[in-house]
Amino acid sequence: MATSLLTDRYELTMLSAALHDDTAGRRACFELFARRLPDGRRYGVVAGTGRFLEALPDFRFGDEELGLISDFLDPATVDYLRNYRFAGDIDGYPEGELYFPGSPVLTVRGTFAECVILETLLLSVYNHDCAIASAAARMVSAAAGRPLIEMGSRRTHEQAAVACARAAYLAGFDASSNLEARRRYGVPAVGTSAHAFTLLHASEGSDSTAAERAAFAAQVAALGVDTTLLVDTYDITTGVRNAIEVAGPELGAVRIDSGDLGVLTRQVRTQLDDLGATGTRIVVSGDLDEYSIAALRAEPVDTYGVGTSLVTGSGAPTAGMVYKLVEIDGLPVAKRSSHKESHGGHKRALRAAKPSGTITEEIVYRVAAGSPAISEPVREITTALVRAGEVVGDEGLDTMRGRVRTGLLSLPWEGLGLSHGDPAIPTRLVG
Amino acid sequence: MATSLLTDRYELTMLSAALHDDTAGRRACFELFARRLPDGRRYGVVAGTGRFLEALPDFRFGDEELGLISDFLDPATVDYLRNYRFAGDIDGYPEGELYFPGSPVLTVRGTFAECVILETLLLSVYNHDCAIASAAARMVSAAAGRPLIEMGSRRTHEQAAVACARAAYLAGFDASSNLEARRRYGVPAVGTSAHAFTLLHASEGSDSTAAERAAFAAQVAALGVDTTLLVDTYDITTGVRNAIEVAGPELGAVRIDSGDLGVLTRQVRTQLDDLGATGTRIVVSGDLDEYSIAALRAEPVDTYGVGTSLVTGSGAPTAGMVYKLVEIDGLPVAKRSSHKESHGGHKRALRAAKPSGTITEEIVYRVAAGSPAISEPVREITTALVRAGEVVGDEGLDTMRGRVRTGLLSLPWEGLGLSHGDPAIPTRLVG
Repeated sequence: MATSLLTDRYELTMLSAALHDDTAGRRACFELFARRLPDGRRYGVVAGTGRFLEALPDFRFGDEELGLISDFLDPATVDYLRNYRFAGDIDGYPEGELYFPGSPVLTVRGTFAECVILETLLLSVYNHDCAIASAAARMVSAAAGRPLIEMGSRRTHEQAAVACARAAYLAGFDASSNLEARRRYGVPAVGTSAHAFTLLHASEGSDSTAAERAAFAAQVAALGVDTTLLVDTYDITTGVRNAIEVAGPELGAVRIDSGDLGVLTRQVRTQLDDLGATGTRIVVSGDLDEYSIAALRAEPVDTYGVGTSLVTGSGAPTAGMVYKLVEIDGLPVAKRSSHKESHGGHKRALRAAKPSGTITEEIVYRVAAGSPAISEPVREITTALVRAGEVVGDEGLDTMRGRVRTGLLSLPWEGLGLSHGDPAIPTRLVG
Repeated sequence: MATSLLTDRYELTMLSAALHDDTAGRRACFELFARRLPDGRRYGVVAGTGRFLEALPDFRFGDEELGLISDFLDPATVDYLRNYRFAGDIDGYPEGELYFPGSPVLTVRGTFAECVILETLLLSVYNHDCAIASAAARMVSAAAGRPLIEMGSRRTHEQAAVACARAAYLAGFDASSNLEARRRYGVPAVGTSAHAFTLLHASEGSDSTAAERAAFAAQVAALGVDTTLLVDTYDITTGVRNAIEVAGPELGAVRIDSGDLGVLTRQVRTQLDDLGATGTRIVVSGDLDEYSIAALRAEPVDTYGVGTSLVTGSGAPTAGMVYKLVEIDGLPVAKRSSHKESHGGHKRALRAAKPSGTITEEIVYRVAAGSPAISEPVREITTALVRAGEVVGDEGLDTMRGRVRTGLLSLPWEGLGLSHGDPAIPTRLVG
């Protein structure tokens, strides 16, 4: 399916005007970056690269698309779009890399015309996916090694949900509830039952225990004893007892979706152990975010299920990325409006670290000035993603997951703090 | 394209377990509702109905979908899904209607099996679209009649962006920047140029005024004098002077995208008038939300462009709708977990109003008990949307827009307050 109409009208009218005065062919460099991180965040996680690179070849204008926009475009612009295919170069931070304010996350080079019309699609993908992955990474570090399941599909747009599952997995979540994310990206899909399944077994004249036991029995019969039973439809203590009486002490897990999870998990753990179900795991869910995940660190939680806060970026549903023209025909350019300054010039980035591997600084340099001499060990972050329109930087999700893990380990300890703070490392522009 | 995998795995495992113990065919009633409005909001706007009704016929499982899920489902469940087609009834609030805590926004009736598997898709669509439309309606009332343009596509997932444009238009916005929303829903698309277009005209040795004038001249030549020129790339006063000198006093509009918009619009209005451009409009944009829109009421703003805050629901990016089983084989059922109570039974809603039309109360009644006797004038809100699987409640966006307009007029005056407050009217459950 063509992705070319997932764009703002003004890109095509700019194109039209640029074709009109013969500036459309000027050599441009656009940069995608965030001026700042969301309030108090200490790092961001680059996400969306894979999705964008998949959408790029479909950014074409066929007869249907042209028919729909030709009423406000002149014939020369329509002709240009009919033959459009991005043929420029894209460099950027690989997916899963950390980023900081001013990190040149992506640079797009080619004619002004071919670069400018990618703006909306690029920003949509990166602003969404970076927001989700950045929130997810905080939850992963708060969970301190315990598994996390993404289950927020129902709280966000149905297609955004699929991208959320991917971004969460990229950032270190273990699985998602979403089936389309499994199909499209191979994200492991998990899930067993909802309160509705217990209520389904209610009947006139029988009590809630009968309904719950019937539901548990049906679930165990269909899904096996390793399933997860949801024990909080009525009373949790009764629910746990019913679960173990029906499934036996080999039951895989119980899930608690409401109440004071700290108190309840201790209580349920004791009850399970007393019933001999020492191997039965406890899954908690219900409005968890990175703070409540961290607050449960001392409790006997085995798995966290996270929904709303994940798919809404935990307070920062968009990453604040912008896409700015930074160079035209070799000349650095920049807007000068108040509070929205940007820095001209095609740039790349290095990251400096101590010998221990702890990172100390993001160094952004203008390509025209050459790579600067830095005394500390540095690593080149910027990598080739597209050359002459062809994707060259294709990677699997596992590689990206490894990159997030490595990135989080490289942060100075205060960089992993959940409280509001400054970016974990400063960004310095040189050259 | 099939929409059936835009769902959570647990719905299909519940289905499997229900088929296994012969409860799948029980007659169920599910209700979609919000326990509360987002913090301090006074009303919500129902949105997503049209999108859901469009997605429903595609909720089918073909060979491809079945191939992807058969590894965790038994053959009986796969067979059921192969023949699945929703054949039940759906009633609900028509799209564009106001809703309040506990309003039965949708009821879905049929077998447990056919109703339960729609949960994720239904919630995704409604949680997203209601959040956006509800935020948009607040902006529309804050703008007090001045036109609003939705331009947030780049701040949200690329497909969510299309739904945002639709939801904003539904709530009373006048247009959107998004071309796909124009194609799919007929939302008027507008937009002219970005800062990049001015910077494109920079060249070695020439100053910013030369670049700006060249850009303005190109835009006017291509798009005509009624276009909107973006005047804040460098210095706004110079930008306005350049705009009028290049385009003449018949220029359509200037856009300001940064700075203190209150001060700037007054200053620009005076400057435009002094230059004889008394008909040139002023478009403002740049991190506007309902509060800053309201704060600009006394200023000479002609059009507001709203991005980030619109597509993120202005602090409430998801509407908090849930989908709960409320009746099984005629028996009202409800979960009893702490803080997550719901009320059993198939329900419908009436809205009471004073003779003046100002609404006073939402009255939710159990269908089994019959319509209650109410002394005030009441209006039946619940309407038929789907009968035996066929959509019966199809409407155009214009009808829905009218419904939002009427709804906002019907609110008691404090219901339109932007500050945090209680729901505009109470919801009462009777019967």
